[in-house]
Amino acid sequence: MAGQATSIIVDWGTTSLRATLVSQNGKELDHLETEQGISSLSKGEHEAVLMAALSPWFSAHGALPVAALGMITSRNGWIEVPYVPCPAGPAELAAGTVRRTLPNGSDLVFLPGLNDPARRPFPDVMRGEETQIVGHGLVPDATIILPGTHSKWARVKSGRIDSFQTFVTGEIFNLLVNHSFIARGSTQPPVEDPDAYRWGLDEAKQSTAMLSLLFSARTGGLVGRLSADQLRSYVWGLVIGQEFRQARDAGWYSEGGAAAIVGNDGLNDLYVVAADVFDLKTSMGTDDALTKGALAVLQQTLA
Amino acid sequence: MAGQATSIIVDWGTTSLRATLVSQNGKELDHLETEQGISSLSKGEHEAVLMAALSPWFSAHGALPVAALGMITSRNGWIEVPYVPCPAGPAELAAGTVRRTLPNGSDLVFLPGLNDPARRPFPDVMRGEETQIVGHGLVPDATIILPGTHSKWARVKSGRIDSFQTFVTGEIFNLLVNHSFIARGSTQPPVEDPDAYRWGLDEAKQSTAMLSLLFSARTGGLVGRLSADQLRSYVWGLVIGQEFRQARDAGWYSEGGAAAIVGNDGLNDLYVVAADVFDLKTSMGTDDALTKGALAVLQQTLA
Repeated sequence: MAGQATSIIVDWGTTSLRATLVSQNGKELDHLETEQGISSLSKGEHEAVLMAALSPWFSAHGALPVAALGMITSRNGWIEVPYVPCPAGPAELAAGTVRRTLPNGSDLVFLPGLNDPARRPFPDVMRGEETQIVGHGLVPDATIILPGTHSKWARVKSGRIDSFQTFVTGEIFNLLVNHSFIARGSTQPPVEDPDAYRWGLDEAKQSTAMLSLLFSARTGGLVGRLSADQLRSYVWGLVIGQEFRQARDAGWYSEGGAAAIVGNDGLNDLYVVAADVFDLKTSMGTDDALTKGALAVLQQTLA
Repeated sequence: MAGQATSIIVDWGTTSLRATLVSQNGKELDHLETEQGISSLSKGEHEAVLMAALSPWFSAHGALPVAALGMITSRNGWIEVPYVPCPAGPAELAAGTVRRTLPNGSDLVFLPGLNDPARRPFPDVMRGEETQIVGHGLVPDATIILPGTHSKWARVKSGRIDSFQTFVTGEIFNLLVNHSFIARGSTQPPVEDPDAYRWGLDEAKQSTAMLSLLFSARTGGLVGRLSADQLRSYVWGLVIGQEFRQARDAGWYSEGGAAAIVGNDGLNDLYVVAADVFDLKTSMGTDDALTKGALAVLQQTLA
């Protein structure tokens, strides 16, 4: 084994429990995943489920500190951990953790989510993405994009997460392609078309009228210029393009600027193309950002 | 009877067939409605369905010219009638009609929809709303709003419909409240809250970032400032407010301007409030705009 196991990171979301066994320096030694997300569990079941999932590692390595994050710390999870306000780095996040002791004596540390009180009309929120940003790195100052159902744009400044904003881009896409007038016109199974995607981005870049632009997904078919095979990628272009346009207008970047894309939800390649269309240089984060970030907060907590 | 029956207007949509018996001057003498929309019919069934529906009137009054409009003239309807391009008034629409003769000798006139070739990226389209606009009146020049699942903003100029643009506002609202993260947080049965609606409009007026603004429907609940009872009306405010913001940016009106609200889809009262928030004076069209408009085109066709 390349390193000694020193802790366990549990990313416990709505539909799955993902755990990683890590060494002192963050090397991922083993991984497991179950479908026991919080939506399948009732109050009072969480500890037994966690102990059963981690028992092979506890048997092999004895008690180990466990960091748990994600929707498990939300109102519908195990215990609700209050959001830590921006600006925040590992120290502020560690101060917001909630600790328990597991039956085998292991420390269980629930990591907090982050909110941004400066956003209007209400503070914005994230649970999990803040840990990815910490793992990606808080030096130097940077703009970070986390693509997803509810994608996030964040600013890293002076070693902390300074501010962020949510865009419900992936959710709107899913609604449109699964339930709207667009659903009826699209090829099944879905076809990916890079040219149609870029076309959608170009149209989104030129329009402030998102509610009108979306109708082009129908009118393009009516005039025979947008095929059923192109529709899905074209709509991705419209909505991700609107996210980039709106994020620019909200001050997250300027043309010619740079940003890092962090996370691993399958949309990163689409976001790289969008950034190119909007003249934003991008770098790609590594897949272990969540593990590294959780370990950083855990080590601060237990220090 | 207050006037002699001279024609029949058939508004034949996706889910219903609505027919009105009218006098020479447009007075509505009788009305019937069935659930035989085009989605429930196959090719070849339409004529028999229409004859059965209208047979009481044909028996009482003999052969009468029939104007048919709506999705019945679309690709999935009885016959596809090509769109007439803007600018267009009754003369241009009459020139775009398609005529048939029914088994009892009645003229059947299919009214065309309208497209706007100037819109980008593709020509915009309407089927039925153009007839409502004609019935509302083409003098003097005006901006017309037709609220709906796919609402329309149109410009009447020099006695014709000069241009128009579609906003998929009602569709996005329905997707959000029925299928999204918002659906889970809203009270059932729905509650209407005028203050929450105006609040959503105010927020929409201040934001260019629609994809971000929609997330406030969740964050407002998280901080306890937006209740489940308020959610539905607040979201209506967000989306209709964004329509008014985007329509203003697209040049359909300026602050202090005026517009007429035409149509009868149940949203008119919400649009009057939105117009007030966006400093747009409104007048309300009458409920018989569709009948009057269809009669005007029918009379031009048969003249």
